[in-house]
Amino acid sequence: MGLVVQKYGGSSVADAEGIKRVAKRIVEAKKNGHQVVVVVSAMGDTTDELIDLAEQVSPMPAGREFDMLLTAGERISMALLAMAIKNLGHEAQSFTGSQAGVITDSVHNKARIIDVTPGRIRTALDEGNIAIVAGFQGVSADKKDITTLGRGGSDTTAVALAAALDAEVCEIYTDVDGVFTADPRVVKKARKIDWIAFEDMLELASSGSKVLLHRCVEYARRYNIPIHVRSSFSGLQGTWVSSEPIEQGDKKVEQAIISGVAHDTSEAKITVVGVPDKPGEAASIFRAIANAEINIDMVVQNVSAVTTGLTDISFTLPKTEGRKAIDALEKNKTAIGFESLRYDDQIGKISLVGAGMKTNPGVTASFFEALSDAGVNIELISTSEIRISVVTRADDVPEAVRAVHTAFGLDSDSAEAVVYGGTGR
Amino acid sequence: MGLVVQKYGGSSVADAEGIKRVAKRIVEAKKNGHQVVVVVSAMGDTTDELIDLAEQVSPMPAGREFDMLLTAGERISMALLAMAIKNLGHEAQSFTGSQAGVITDSVHNKARIIDVTPGRIRTALDEGNIAIVAGFQGVSADKKDITTLGRGGSDTTAVALAAALDAEVCEIYTDVDGVFTADPRVVKKARKIDWIAFEDMLELASSGSKVLLHRCVEYARRYNIPIHVRSSFSGLQGTWVSSEPIEQGDKKVEQAIISGVAHDTSEAKITVVGVPDKPGEAASIFRAIANAEINIDMVVQNVSAVTTGLTDISFTLPKTEGRKAIDALEKNKTAIGFESLRYDDQIGKISLVGAGMKTNPGVTASFFEALSDAGVNIELISTSEIRISVVTRADDVPEAVRAVHTAFGLDSDSAEAVVYGGTGR
Repeated sequence: MGLVVQKYGGSSVADAEGIKRVAKRIVEAKKNGHQVVVVVSAMGDTTDELIDLAEQVSPMPAGREFDMLLTAGERISMALLAMAIKNLGHEAQSFTGSQAGVITDSVHNKARIIDVTPGRIRTALDEGNIAIVAGFQGVSADKKDITTLGRGGSDTTAVALAAALDAEVCEIYTDVDGVFTADPRVVKKARKIDWIAFEDMLELASSGSKVLLHRCVEYARRYNIPIHVRSSFSGLQGTWVSSEPIEQGDKKVEQAIISGVAHDTSEAKITVVGVPDKPGEAASIFRAIANAEINIDMVVQNVSAVTTGLTDISFTLPKTEGRKAIDALEKNKTAIGFESLRYDDQIGKISLVGAGMKTNPGVTASFFEALSDAGVNIELISTSEIRISVVTRADDVPEAVRAVHTAFGLDSDSAEAVVYGGTGR
Repeated sequence: MGLVVQKYGGSSVADAEGIKRVAKRIVEAKKNGHQVVVVVSAMGDTTDELIDLAEQVSPMPAGREFDMLLTAGERISMALLAMAIKNLGHEAQSFTGSQAGVITDSVHNKARIIDVTPGRIRTALDEGNIAIVAGFQGVSADKKDITTLGRGGSDTTAVALAAALDAEVCEIYTDVDGVFTADPRVVKKARKIDWIAFEDMLELASSGSKVLLHRCVEYARRYNIPIHVRSSFSGLQGTWVSSEPIEQGDKKVEQAIISGVAHDTSEAKITVVGVPDKPGEAASIFRAIANAEINIDMVVQNVSAVTTGLTDISFTLPKTEGRKAIDALEKNKTAIGFESLRYDDQIGKISLVGAGMKTNPGVTASFFEALSDAGVNIELISTSEIRISVVTRADDVPEAVRAVHTAFGLDSDSAEAVVYGGTGR
């Protein structure tokens, strides 16, 4: 039995009862002969409460101090969890990100892990302890200041520690049973996925699936650490995310052609109207956006109108960046030379993800047919080797997701239809 | 203008408004040309809430984890305070006890500071920052674990930092105007003391005055750091605690003969009845108590009854230790050879403190006369060079304190009568 890293999110440790329940689960793993490292998030709404306090004292809290503040949240949950485990008769020690050797760059509020030196964790494990580590936080390499990794950072902490400690698996405990073929709140017949490849999970994560964050999956793929996403409530087998299919019973789980349908209604669309159709135009638009440090998603350029020599360029971006992007473009209006801007935040994106697309023709056609049958109008299209995404009206998203989910045989009623029939791509 | 250490207690930073008010006060000191180091406690009831959480997960929380938990409180307040200061346009950085170089022993929950290495604080100050330091916490020298200094530890942190940084003064901001000649809740006419010597303050602190803790004053005396106790609300001049009288206006404040009257109703009395009056008896009793790690206060042995050769020994101790002391004595009953134990927690202690006692005869007599005139019966007496303490019924304490306060001319109506008339000691 090797080393296991377990991560518990805020909803799993929301109160004293939750902490005691999680403590029991951790002790079980220890009793099963594993060395156990636990990464824990702040309790329930703690982080939001701290953010609220910060806003009360300062409209623009300084990054360094904001990180110092937020890291109090995990300090509370990790200490309580260690106490609860000791109360069950097992040895446990809690460690801050800094003590656990989580070294980051100096970008406060969204630092990146650049190294993990888990010497104290190793020692604690060798002495028979369960090691509890604060998620979401680290210490900057240069200034030795406390940093945070941004939302979802605890998952990344867990994967990074698993990599540094050469763990067998990184278990991400959450409040759902695993990764589903679609958001179960939208698609009642969504099915839990037993295994999904890193690549497909990366596409799902960047298409709106919130179970795992892109950065965390990327880290796991780079160091080839299997992730097991599962419920801290049910204790059932969840979803394995890894490079190779897992064994289940006697048989190997097959690679599904389609992994799932993701959707995202957090984006807005900006259309730059009346752009001269000449080289360098698009570049000047996206240089202005990039200089404002805004990440964009999909980009489409319309066919130029022959009479005017003008074209329109549309792109999508997070709604939260909308104001900033509009400002950046308006400031450069003369330099870029466009006529006007249109802003639309009533859009949604539906994405179909599956490595099987590469080898199964007809997936794209089936996708569009399903949307058409559901009466959903497509506004933008973008594809990768293993993903097709379309932008529609936001109102159409739930119906569109359900239609696509059914069309590709993902509904749990037809759970036997794991192998996609194929209608030719 | 030199360096000033300011300490703000939990009631001064109980909410966002409090934090903003304190931030303004700090910025004022900075504007006046001082280098400013601020030590801050946890907000309002935070520590109690954390203790409550700990008790919910474990009836006996482990010391190491308990300290990890509690230190989250100052982390929150110090980060918010730094944000609030930056919001006023001044540079500020917050530091944990560990980052500030507060090195302690390894006794969790009541660690003692053994060294302060404030390198990062110096750097922050030299770069023009106001340095905010978490009170009440440090890091253990051997294991590098987070420790706490026990209740009142933030005052000690402030004084220790003031000593290490060679500060001009350590300002302790609190919710009262300073140190008073008696507890103002008991004595309405209690008067704020302008200056008090370290020695008198030490006696007041160990006699029940709660404004400053004994350990903190002791530290200040050892390193000769003047303490200025003052209100974070009024901003008025408070009480100076130092080795030499301060100047006020043109004139030096005189050493008062009597500094004040302290009282304490947190103690109980144990009487060991029927002890053989022979050498070694008292030793065996107090060895049993000491082995149980209980600190006692006053001790009195009655005159031995000639006929029986037996005597009674009474001592006082914190009520919270009562159960433990009784158990320790009962366990050693045969070895010690006493007849029975009496436990009385309805007692109170009244102490009169003043360096002037040494040179002014008659203080003791006046003290007893005042108590007698007030109809208060004395049960135990103990004296030091600059203090007289008596034990009475707990119910008599308020009346006794008022009577003594008036008798020694301490009432604020007779504020001009600073020099004690003397009735012969």
